[in-house]
Amino acid sequence: MNPDIYICGTGNVGTALLEAFVLNGLPVKGIYSSSKANFYLGIPVKDYKEVPPPDSMVILAVPDDVIRLVEKFFHHPDLHLIHCSGSVGLDALTHRSRGVFYPLQTWTRNIASNWAHVPVLVESEDESLQAYLMQMAQSIHANPTAANSEQRKALHIAAVFANNFGNAMFTIAFELAQKAGFDPEILKPLIAKTADKLHTLSPAEAQTGPAKRGDEKVMQQHLEALQNDPVLQKMYQDISDWIGRKHRG
Amino acid sequence: MNPDIYICGTGNVGTALLEAFVLNGLPVKGIYSSSKANFYLGIPVKDYKEVPPPDSMVILAVPDDVIRLVEKFFHHPDLHLIHCSGSVGLDALTHRSRGVFYPLQTWTRNIASNWAHVPVLVESEDESLQAYLMQMAQSIHANPTAANSEQRKALHIAAVFANNFGNAMFTIAFELAQKAGFDPEILKPLIAKTADKLHTLSPAEAQTGPAKRGDEKVMQQHLEALQNDPVLQKMYQDISDWIGRKHRG
Repeated sequence: MNPDIYICGTGNVGTALLEAFVLNGLPVKGIYSSSKANFYLGIPVKDYKEVPPPDSMVILAVPDDVIRLVEKFFHHPDLHLIHCSGSVGLDALTHRSRGVFYPLQTWTRNIASNWAHVPVLVESEDESLQAYLMQMAQSIHANPTAANSEQRKALHIAAVFANNFGNAMFTIAFELAQKAGFDPEILKPLIAKTADKLHTLSPAEAQTGPAKRGDEKVMQQHLEALQNDPVLQKMYQDISDWIGRKHRG
Repeated sequence: MNPDIYICGTGNVGTALLEAFVLNGLPVKGIYSSSKANFYLGIPVKDYKEVPPPDSMVILAVPDDVIRLVEKFFHHPDLHLIHCSGSVGLDALTHRSRGVFYPLQTWTRNIASNWAHVPVLVESEDESLQAYLMQMAQSIHANPTAANSEQRKALHIAAVFANNFGNAMFTIAFELAQKAGFDPEILKPLIAKTADKLHTLSPAEAQTGPAKRGDEKVMQQHLEALQNDPVLQKMYQDISDWIGRKHRG
């Protein structure tokens, strides 16, 4: 199996896939996009009316809630349809030959994508399609793992905590530093170290701070300092409680 | 001013300071510790009854709640007393010559300390002591900033969100991944990228995910999946609400 590849969607994931495929010589033949560009990295942007040839693979790198809708543009039964979502089941697709290629990474436009070691969760009922998707991940130097829809959805929640909520904590910290009159850049070495520690320790082992120590006096002082922001105050309390239960039982 | 230096406390901060001072040739003459070792990095461990000579600097790298108590061991008025706490005011010390040297970093024993770029918040009412503490930070290649006790306490809360709570999010993510049958190592590239992004974007700019997009369907699905853990469910809801308000108003 060595299908021609068509990528549908030029958001963060679609663009990151396109870059990786083109750089590594995968046969990307066209792009579907609502954008007005004619080419992306030398690959032609197709009209949705122009159907890919039989046996092509169409990768839907589109928002979760339009996967079903966008699949209809590629209704020919002899296409391989792939979506890239963490939270959508394989069965959202109706094609006989269907699969999932979910990269567990956070992409940002205009920051070059580095696929080395990026875990990619792969799912398909078709053995040869599954094998091809695993190989496709390897071709771009990513790290494929087979996982069913339930596992993928569970890991997506883990990713929300790690990335989205971790980043929210950094955002809150930046705001607090700024309010105290500091350039929030002052927090960057601490944040870098917070992530770096995990090269040698699990996050449970790396935990430090007043909640870990059970330092009620400091926690009380912090809660008082946050009294003008009840939302942050509540968040401080809840996360400290969670750390306390985890580490002090 | 070029005082002999005595470090009291051989926890994470005390040890990190000791390493840095010895490596960079600062005159550390003794250590006070409840540990039974006779030497640390060639520096003798002193008995608390053995008072440092006049004009020495004593750095209290001890838990917040014993700073006042431990200061009493060094009651001679001609000593310079320094504490290293983010959340304790300068006025916790009663010596005429007193100061604060608070490194904004998270240390872990047995992981070599890298002081390059570590912000150090310095405070003293005495100009020459203040200047010396700034220079002491520079001697170990750290990055000193003058800040009063109020500012330092506020920044300490920011540091709790960035480091302690960011790390708690990583811990929760690891637990969720493990429950779904994955080696939690699979999350490490995502966590590394979460921190790396901040080299080019502010955390507010780097935010992604269902809460940022206002994707109610995915958030609902995640909340249902967390229904067996009401604490995490509540945390998911609260942090998502915070992200929603911040990014979608």
